Amino acid sequence: MFRFPLYRTVLRRNGDGLDLMTRSLVISIDAMGGDYGPSTTIPGLALAIETSKDHLNFLVHGDEKVLIPELARHPGLAARCEVRHTDKVIASDEKPANAVRRGRGASMWNAVESVKSGEAIAAVSCGNTGALMAISRLILRMSVDVERPPLVVSWPGRKGVSTVLDAGANIDCNAERLVEFAIMGEAFHRAAHGLARPKVGILNVGSEDVKGHEEVRLAHAILKGGKFDIDYHGFVEGDDLSKNTVDVVVTDGFTGNVALKTAEGTASYIVAELRSALTSTLGAKLGAWLARPALRLFVNKMSPPPATPFLGLNGLVVKCHGGAVAPGFGQSIGLAVDLAKSDFASEVARNMTNLSAAMNAGALEAAMESSGDA
Amino acid sequence: MFRFPLYRTVLRRNGDGLDLMTRSLVISIDAMGGDYGPSTTIPGLALAIETSKDHLNFLVHGDEKVLIPELARHPGLAARCEVRHTDKVIASDEKPANAVRRGRGASMWNAVESVKSGEAIAAVSCGNTGALMAISRLILRMSVDVERPPLVVSWPGRKGVSTVLDAGANIDCNAERLVEFAIMGEAFHRAAHGLARPKVGILNVGSEDVKGHEEVRLAHAILKGGKFDIDYHGFVEGDDLSKNTVDVVVTDGFTGNVALKTAEGTASYIVAELRSALTSTLGAKLGAWLARPALRLFVNKMSPPPATPFLGLNGLVVKCHGGAVAPGFGQSIGLAVDLAKSDFASEVARNMTNLSAAMNAGALEAAMESSGDA
Repeated sequence: MFRFPLYRTVLRRNGDGLDLMTRSLVISIDAMGGDYGPSTTIPGLALAIETSKDHLNFLVHGDEKVLIPELARHPGLAARCEVRHTDKVIASDEKPANAVRRGRGASMWNAVESVKSGEAIAAVSCGNTGALMAISRLILRMSVDVERPPLVVSWPGRKGVSTVLDAGANIDCNAERLVEFAIMGEAFHRAAHGLARPKVGILNVGSEDVKGHEEVRLAHAILKGGKFDIDYHGFVEGDDLSKNTVDVVVTDGFTGNVALKTAEGTASYIVAELRSALTSTLGAKLGAWLARPALRLFVNKMSPPPATPFLGLNGLVVKCHGGAVAPGFGQSIGLAVDLAKSDFASEVARNMTNLSAAMNAGALEAAMESSGDA
Repeated sequence: MFRFPLYRTVLRRNGDGLDLMTRSLVISIDAMGGDYGPSTTIPGLALAIETSKDHLNFLVHGDEKVLIPELARHPGLAARCEVRHTDKVIASDEKPANAVRRGRGASMWNAVESVKSGEAIAAVSCGNTGALMAISRLILRMSVDVERPPLVVSWPGRKGVSTVLDAGANIDCNAERLVEFAIMGEAFHRAAHGLARPKVGILNVGSEDVKGHEEVRLAHAILKGGKFDIDYHGFVEGDDLSKNTVDVVVTDGFTGNVALKTAEGTASYIVAELRSALTSTLGAKLGAWLARPALRLFVNKMSPPPATPFLGLNGLVVKCHGGAVAPGFGQSIGLAVDLAKSDFASEVARNMTNLSAAMNAGALEAAMESSGDA
């Protein structure tokens, strides 16, 4: 298992010369990604250093002809940045396979390389998701059994936010993979939300032990029986997502993707219907105008956070939404810092060892039998 | 394959005596089911005869001590009803297994028996769903390969309503079962919504042939290659449900149940948030009051229809929501009539024959190979 190089000694540049050596958190930035590139990522970094309690430094990968003038507008930030020039960029519509084949030396590639080399504790990019995932897998390699990092979604609901995984990366998941999602999701939720003991559930069609297909019943048996350091709640259903019944919801990539897109579709349909209802009559229009501040708060509450981590790699990569503007990119930096400072890696490692032990000790067969009896 | 006994000759009772013999549609009613029993079902029947263009008659199963006084309030209806007395009722919390073991002679049981015996063309109940499904399967038997009737959901969306199945009855579905859902769902949607050529899609995580797990890829290949009389659109995603991209969405009971409950949870969360936003300030409250008529229309549009059919049985059974009041029960009768008058059974039978032929002719293997190539 890997360990994050938590604090690193870096050179701080200050105007024209070199500053003192200082202990600091170093984040590697793909400054060229996303819909707006450096005009968003650089102001995002400036916001991040304003709001962070930590002393942050950045390795900023991208075209110095664009980056240096942009950094010049943020002198406080420039002192914390080391620009690593490249004029190669991975396009937003590049196929992941091509990105892997031809991406070496691009800003995204170099940002991830800085994590591999130990110069940075995390990489953040708002570039092409598929390319970022493919490059991260190639450079950092998976640290767990699942094929690719699960898509982690922050699901807004009545009591706050639940972490849902996998929302689409791994279509076929056996029980062991579901348990891995539980382990990683739990450690992630604690790191990102500061909750000491996140409650974990498996998404199913009912709450009784006998419900659902073999994979979920078996994962349920392993989590109930295994000696994991996890507060396992049991099965949850689709409507438990927005109720935040548990903090972490585990599911295979097929079901998770359908659930996520169904929820998004439902929400956007309801908002469209509501908009049309609220413009249908003069009274409704006036009503909507009066209720506007409240409705705006409502829309903000529904909006998903801009950043998601790629879990299960030998190193930390955070993906920021391609359409994010500066505050969203700043939040992504915050997430990377929270994860870097947490015990994420060691917690996952410990529970993974427990999972292997459980599987070796024949718990799988026992769980299978007891699940077959049910 | 079964055929519905479409029009039947029945005795019409008129007050104290027997009326002329007349050709009429006969529906068998479990009058005791649901949250409100005969105080809802009987007024529901009265509404059904008012709105139907057909001449309807009813076999009304239940306790005559309650039913006859209730019918006395609706003289026009009473003339169309034949009460079949039983004082046995299946409780709303009865386990399906117990309902099958001990339900013989109950109003629900007798209502389904009337379809089996050919006295009625359809049975309608707002009683215990699990019990109604178990009793229907026992008495009528499945006419298709799937284990139990798929749960059919009418999904409201931007362009109207899509039919989604299976929303939870069959958890493990191979490709052949998914194709059966496509066949039944298509015939149902035409019967219920009068659309000549409903478009059919399979729920998946993307639209390309290579997306998803083996079962959906194979069902996709069969529907594309098979000689079915179906307008097959291809794969759809979760957000296509509320967009009504296709008229019929096919999925396994696990995914369908999660999607349905996720959508319900999302909708109820958004409505709760909206309610709290619209009561958060005086301006918002006033706005909400002004927009009230528009908001009420909006809520009505979101409400699911009260009736759903049990498809794949050798006979027609319609389940009405337990909490339905008279208009909802009346709508359920309308759905039963639409289905009874349609060519549902023969259309399903014809496509099922095509499915068997396709499977025998090695199309399955061919489809598997081509899906493996992809």
